[in-house]
Amino acid sequence: MFEHNRDTLEKALSAIAGRGYWSAYPESPSPRVYGEGAAERGKEAFESYLGKPFPLDQPGTGAWIGAERSPYGIDLGVTYPEPVVEDLIGAAKAAMPAWRDAGPDTRALACVEIVNRINQHSFELANAVQHTTGQAFVMAFQAGGPHAQDRALEAVTYGYAAMTASAPIAHWEKPGKGEPLVMDKRFTVVPRGVALVIGCNTFPTWNAYPGLFASLVTGNPVIVKPHPRAVLPLAITVRIAREVLAEAGFDPALVSLAAEEGRGLAKTLATHPDVRIVDFTGSTEFGDWLEQNARQALVHTEKAGVNTVVVDSTDSWRGMLGNLAFSLSLYSGQMCTAPQNILVPAGGIDTDEGHKGFEEVASGLAAAVGKLLGDDARAVELTGAIVNPDVLARVESAPSLGDVVLPSRAVRHPSFPDAVIRTPVIVRVDPSASDVYGREHFGPIAFLVPTASTEESLEVLRRTTKARGALTASAYSTSPEVLDQAESAALDAGVNLSCNLTAGVFVNQSAAFSDYHGTGANPAATASLTDPGYVAGRFHMVQSRRPA
Amino acid sequence: MFEHNRDTLEKALSAIAGRGYWSAYPESPSPRVYGEGAAERGKEAFESYLGKPFPLDQPGTGAWIGAERSPYGIDLGVTYPEPVVEDLIGAAKAAMPAWRDAGPDTRALACVEIVNRINQHSFELANAVQHTTGQAFVMAFQAGGPHAQDRALEAVTYGYAAMTASAPIAHWEKPGKGEPLVMDKRFTVVPRGVALVIGCNTFPTWNAYPGLFASLVTGNPVIVKPHPRAVLPLAITVRIAREVLAEAGFDPALVSLAAEEGRGLAKTLATHPDVRIVDFTGSTEFGDWLEQNARQALVHTEKAGVNTVVVDSTDSWRGMLGNLAFSLSLYSGQMCTAPQNILVPAGGIDTDEGHKGFEEVASGLAAAVGKLLGDDARAVELTGAIVNPDVLARVESAPSLGDVVLPSRAVRHPSFPDAVIRTPVIVRVDPSASDVYGREHFGPIAFLVPTASTEESLEVLRRTTKARGALTASAYSTSPEVLDQAESAALDAGVNLSCNLTAGVFVNQSAAFSDYHGTGANPAATASLTDPGYVAGRFHMVQSRRPA
Repeated sequence: MFEHNRDTLEKALSAIAGRGYWSAYPESPSPRVYGEGAAERGKEAFESYLGKPFPLDQPGTGAWIGAERSPYGIDLGVTYPEPVVEDLIGAAKAAMPAWRDAGPDTRALACVEIVNRINQHSFELANAVQHTTGQAFVMAFQAGGPHAQDRALEAVTYGYAAMTASAPIAHWEKPGKGEPLVMDKRFTVVPRGVALVIGCNTFPTWNAYPGLFASLVTGNPVIVKPHPRAVLPLAITVRIAREVLAEAGFDPALVSLAAEEGRGLAKTLATHPDVRIVDFTGSTEFGDWLEQNARQALVHTEKAGVNTVVVDSTDSWRGMLGNLAFSLSLYSGQMCTAPQNILVPAGGIDTDEGHKGFEEVASGLAAAVGKLLGDDARAVELTGAIVNPDVLARVESAPSLGDVVLPSRAVRHPSFPDAVIRTPVIVRVDPSASDVYGREHFGPIAFLVPTASTEESLEVLRRTTKARGALTASAYSTSPEVLDQAESAALDAGVNLSCNLTAGVFVNQSAAFSDYHGTGANPAATASLTDPGYVAGRFHMVQSRRPA
Repeated sequence: MFEHNRDTLEKALSAIAGRGYWSAYPESPSPRVYGEGAAERGKEAFESYLGKPFPLDQPGTGAWIGAERSPYGIDLGVTYPEPVVEDLIGAAKAAMPAWRDAGPDTRALACVEIVNRINQHSFELANAVQHTTGQAFVMAFQAGGPHAQDRALEAVTYGYAAMTASAPIAHWEKPGKGEPLVMDKRFTVVPRGVALVIGCNTFPTWNAYPGLFASLVTGNPVIVKPHPRAVLPLAITVRIAREVLAEAGFDPALVSLAAEEGRGLAKTLATHPDVRIVDFTGSTEFGDWLEQNARQALVHTEKAGVNTVVVDSTDSWRGMLGNLAFSLSLYSGQMCTAPQNILVPAGGIDTDEGHKGFEEVASGLAAAVGKLLGDDARAVELTGAIVNPDVLARVESAPSLGDVVLPSRAVRHPSFPDAVIRTPVIVRVDPSASDVYGREHFGPIAFLVPTASTEESLEVLRRTTKARGALTASAYSTSPEVLDQAESAALDAGVNLSCNLTAGVFVNQSAAFSDYHGTGANPAATASLTDPGYVAGRFHMVQSRRPA
């Protein structure tokens, strides 16, 4: 039915094999790309949801719930059907056999169609992401729209590749003394069971799509449980998925929404005997709980991490400072990939502008952030707003953790007077204060640590990553030997490394189809977005053979 | 170094994609295949181990332990170095970085070399397998030798395919408004950590090799802990692996033996924080314990199951009875794949020799087994010996479970007077006695169950498989509709199905590179030997990127 999507699937298969640059969904919100009026229509669509029950044809208790409030200071007032857990799971199970029997090709092409339709709603989603996460609009468009869609397609593609790596039928002919033994065999992909995706507050689509589509393409019905503060982007997603599935003749119960106001629905669903896959993004505390308690399920978690930058030397002093300043400021550091610990030798570093002492590095970085965020109106388009009160509390108490190199600054948004906006705080702490920098401080909080040497910096990188996990690591050096040592440390610690970023690539950004997000090799995540380990456990092969 | 093995690896890669017939290691023990004198030299090599410390250059406590006794009635008297757990794990960890850095190609070619060398020791291993498991010689040669070697190569190949599905390096060039962004990226396979393989009593090599080689090829050092009654086949294996690894310049501690006399070493090793992968074959009780307690590890288990035969009708009455009789008798049913429950409509079945009532099916099957095993000297070459006292106790108490259709018979081995040998017992039980036939009775014990209809038989298949697991299912019918219903039941239950086996293919046998062994989709196993899900979790991808 969606045969016209095969070309996209083929290109995506080439992309995951080569892992060079490729993208299916343009990241530019320009009218030249998405059409005149697309931005306006998307904003209207978003606004049409506000203050009303969300149009979702899904059975529930009859109660409509929801209490989302934009970090920009407005109540959304959207409500969602409160689910009945047993009904939700029962409907998902009933929908499964036909989806299984449809086979990998039909499922993959339908999943691509869902992602294509989501892409057509990118502006609507951008507004929904902006007003649930606090991201600035352009970031909400890109990270919540095309970048998330690329990750979705990537997951579909990995799932399809894994399901089709072996032939679906085989003719087996074993030579022998007499007549050969001849059998016909059929190999069927069988889904693991009902899947649960638990969304997060900061990247509701980007972090939920890989699990959602990896499970769906491999034959599993998916229940999407958004974070109570970021329901709308996933409600729109679920609605689109259900529409496409119904169009294709499948039961829309293959994808359903489990909205809540934060009363423990995730625990109930995750430990239900019929829930066989759980994907989660969020706190280490709850991720660990899921791993310990959702024993009947395959559990994939992405949790907290401590991201480290090792500064040894640079041939682009200004490029390095500008790049780091941007990484600290983007979405106020409210990214699992944002750097937290910047390790610099106490004796300073060599640069293309001469030797810089530790204090010069500190003041240089502070000045770079100050310059980048100097103009309020431009600053808010980079930092966005603070997503929730927990982050705000951490920023406000950060000065007590060490010597303040750069204080955080409250910024007033020109259009949203009630938005809570803070620039990054940079705090100097000693290498001995590993109780401080050795754990995650999610938000616009960075630590500058004077180490005895780059060797010690790499040792800190190894130690903190192994102990607390990390999603990114980064190193700056003009020495090939030091870069090799950094690579070696990153391999030992199991963290993805970026070296010498001084221009338009930032450590907190990963490109679908090329960059892996997370590795599974350190405590921050159980798997990568996306690699074979992320999809393989979601299905089984069941064979049937008979004499030919 | 082992570049000459690349052709084998390439052929194996084609085989896992097509899953038709292919084998790398000839299953015939003929001198025309393995050379004149190979059988005699293998026997001498086996005998040279008896009554002595096994030649293994591996550090230990200084104590030499071991208490293997052949089911054919002789003490082996081989002893093995008692390991010091921390030393074993420490040595394995120290060996890991160089093995990781060697990369997928070097590791895969070295693993193929290990399997090739094992193949050269097939006769030696056949004697060791015979005298630890009780298998008859030819079966010990085939299942313990070439068939196990094919499974080993299959695991190497799946691991290699998963590691190399994406390019190891990529040039990323993102077009933009100004200069394109250009990055060079490297993707490195990083092992999960120290792997543990826990061997079983009945198929020490066949069931241990997939885990051993899947972990090793993906970069993990492997500690092999054999069943205390079946150490020698794995000690020989470990010795060969260490020799090849040392020849190739790697630390032989990448593969080590953890022998014990049965004092809980498996629990100590499996829960050690540095053990990150556990492969286990054995009882449901201990498999469940591992899944619950070895929380720091990826755990793959193969446990008990209840294998079912649904008899609806046949166009080969004699072929069906002969095939079933063979499947019940082979290695006295001491196979995880042997049928246990034979479900037949109480009203009988249609056959090419006319309608047969239930009693005729029962007496026909009893006669077929009786004829197959009528001659003692020939019978023992099919049944082998009873592997341990637990199995013997179950056979002896089986008549109390229902109405005996065929009693078990003690057979005297012409060469080994102390061998314990029993033919299968067949017991008729009612469909209501699911407390009896609904659990595994490992050994030469089969139940004949008169059901109301084939529909009920398929329902019993579904129910018992979902509840207790199964490694095989089988159906006989001349009706395409019934075969379709059987396939549908097998998909729902997640079990591999064989239909209408009446000639030289038996339900308890699976051919590497074509048949999957287990599915992971029912409680008998967590994964299949071998599919992508079996290998994918054993390694991670870690990336490094820098501006080009």
